[in-house]
Amino acid sequence: MLTTILEAAGQIASPVEESIRQAELRLNSLTKPPGSLGRLEALAVRLAGISARPQPEYTKRTVVVMAADHGVCCEGVSAFPQEVTLQMAHNFLGGGAGVNVLARQAGAEVKLVDIGMNGEIEHPLLVNRKIRRGTDNMAQGPAMSREDAGRTVLAGVQIAQEAVKSGTDIFVTGEMGIGNTTASAAVLCALEGLSAEAAVGRGTGIDDERLARKTVVVERALRVNRPDAADPLDVLAKVGGLEIAGLAGLILGAAALQTPVILDGFISGAAAMVATALAPEARAYLIASHVSGEQGHKLMLERLGLEPLLDLGLRLGEGTGGVLCLHLIEAVCRIMSEMATFESAGISGAAEA
Amino acid sequence: MLTTILEAAGQIASPVEESIRQAELRLNSLTKPPGSLGRLEALAVRLAGISARPQPEYTKRTVVVMAADHGVCCEGVSAFPQEVTLQMAHNFLGGGAGVNVLARQAGAEVKLVDIGMNGEIEHPLLVNRKIRRGTDNMAQGPAMSREDAGRTVLAGVQIAQEAVKSGTDIFVTGEMGIGNTTASAAVLCALEGLSAEAAVGRGTGIDDERLARKTVVVERALRVNRPDAADPLDVLAKVGGLEIAGLAGLILGAAALQTPVILDGFISGAAAMVATALAPEARAYLIASHVSGEQGHKLMLERLGLEPLLDLGLRLGEGTGGVLCLHLIEAVCRIMSEMATFESAGISGAAEA
Repeated sequence: MLTTILEAAGQIASPVEESIRQAELRLNSLTKPPGSLGRLEALAVRLAGISARPQPEYTKRTVVVMAADHGVCCEGVSAFPQEVTLQMAHNFLGGGAGVNVLARQAGAEVKLVDIGMNGEIEHPLLVNRKIRRGTDNMAQGPAMSREDAGRTVLAGVQIAQEAVKSGTDIFVTGEMGIGNTTASAAVLCALEGLSAEAAVGRGTGIDDERLARKTVVVERALRVNRPDAADPLDVLAKVGGLEIAGLAGLILGAAALQTPVILDGFISGAAAMVATALAPEARAYLIASHVSGEQGHKLMLERLGLEPLLDLGLRLGEGTGGVLCLHLIEAVCRIMSEMATFESAGISGAAEA
Repeated sequence: MLTTILEAAGQIASPVEESIRQAELRLNSLTKPPGSLGRLEALAVRLAGISARPQPEYTKRTVVVMAADHGVCCEGVSAFPQEVTLQMAHNFLGGGAGVNVLARQAGAEVKLVDIGMNGEIEHPLLVNRKIRRGTDNMAQGPAMSREDAGRTVLAGVQIAQEAVKSGTDIFVTGEMGIGNTTASAAVLCALEGLSAEAAVGRGTGIDDERLARKTVVVERALRVNRPDAADPLDVLAKVGGLEIAGLAGLILGAAALQTPVILDGFISGAAAMVATALAPEARAYLIASHVSGEQGHKLMLERLGLEPLLDLGLRLGEGTGGVLCLHLIEAVCRIMSEMATFESAGISGAAEA
């Protein structure tokens, strides 16, 4: 299965050095003190390498929102009942969710994928790639079979391939799934050998009592399943979720097609950890949009070696933070293509020291 | 003079409590866990109070870029020669500067004001409010007279009034002036009793040797002029700059007309410190877009009690960070007006704890 996934994703190339060099030269020719656009300059250089041109442009922006349910919900880990996943799917399809609003602003398309919701929706905008109706309760056994986990990753790879074929040149990862911060925390613990306490956060906003219960549930899931840190598919199957697996596949598929992926928050981070555990070269294609209010997210980004662009205490998920970051990406692209150079504007350079 | 300024600015009202309350209610009715949009929610509430409606909208966005020269340049405090101020003014008018590029993206208009450049430009887009041709060298005596400082603040008040009359509903502060981080550092020291070392930074990117010189120059300016911390006009006149004074006036004028002002970086921060020293109620109308790479800026924001939205190591000035922040402002406005509510979308609320 692992071989199939990596074959399907294809070879992930390194960012293009020549484009990086050209982007650096251009940045230093623009009418501004060298380095004065701070981290936007580093972003410009990274995007140039990813997209193999010094002045990239991203016109078809796709937010892939994977929706799935979690058997672990019956343990009382969330403030919201499980049916909210399906209700929110209707909200996405109607254009009323946070990510829809922000995607309209950013000129991005929201693609809602049913990768494993616990119920059926018929809607022309819904992409149906349901692998199974939610996971099993990971506190009592594996969330799903290794076979299911592999199929879900492959579905994600395929979604990336299809979207790129249709013109998508940048992805934002999004998700919906009541209970998915619990699964993401368990994935983080399993891959990094962390305690549940370090990884578990308040998700949708649970109180102290529920937080304690959620922590115990993650501990139990790890003890019952004993996921193998060296085997990302084993981790996904035992303590993961269908949207986490699907997004991990999306990342692999996008990276193989040299397409940048903007990560949203904690659940997207779990998917990125799985993807980079499967193929470390995928890391070069990831942009961390923000660090969320979910405590384990900071740890994830540190492990991934990604510096988040925004720090606004967001913890809505859906892809909202990722979509906000599209404005910064566009800013960078416009700076590279529209700003005057010292030469074109006839401006004196810095004095020699 | 002080009375004239405060009369011209008019009474600065407090943000409207009823709009704040309504905005809070609306935020909690939207289809998201309470508080999950983090600091964007606090911003939504602040904007509602400022603009006196729970769902504000900002359609005419004006970046006021004040350009001026600084006599202190002859002390060798900047990496760039003084003529770059005028050269960059041409670049702004031609639409090629960083702030022009980012303003086009954000649907904002750049209004370049010659408040005191050391040379003349004839251009239909240039707003000529020149008070004098640059300041004098503050390391040897006052940068300008108290009379000039007052007239410059009044010019800023008037620019705000005219812009609001023409429909501007949100301002971004911007500036251009080789040497103006030196003046801004001196203003910060004078108002807050700080040492030059704590306030002086690398500006356009000076080396260690020039940084040491700049620090000595600020120390000397403070020693020679002995500005009175309790008299903001005295500080402006002795160690300030014309763009700092003009932007301070803009802030007072905008606040009096209940119009939000997005602050850019270090120079805008100095203007905000002067404005709030003149009229503390103006603070409620200020939004800190970012914390810059200039070391004194963080101190300023702490003193102003403003939490910056972005932290990207920007230090270009011109209004660039402020304009980037307009996307977040628009995001907030769209969330308040376009997101579905739990009721409208038929979604279950959070369980009782």
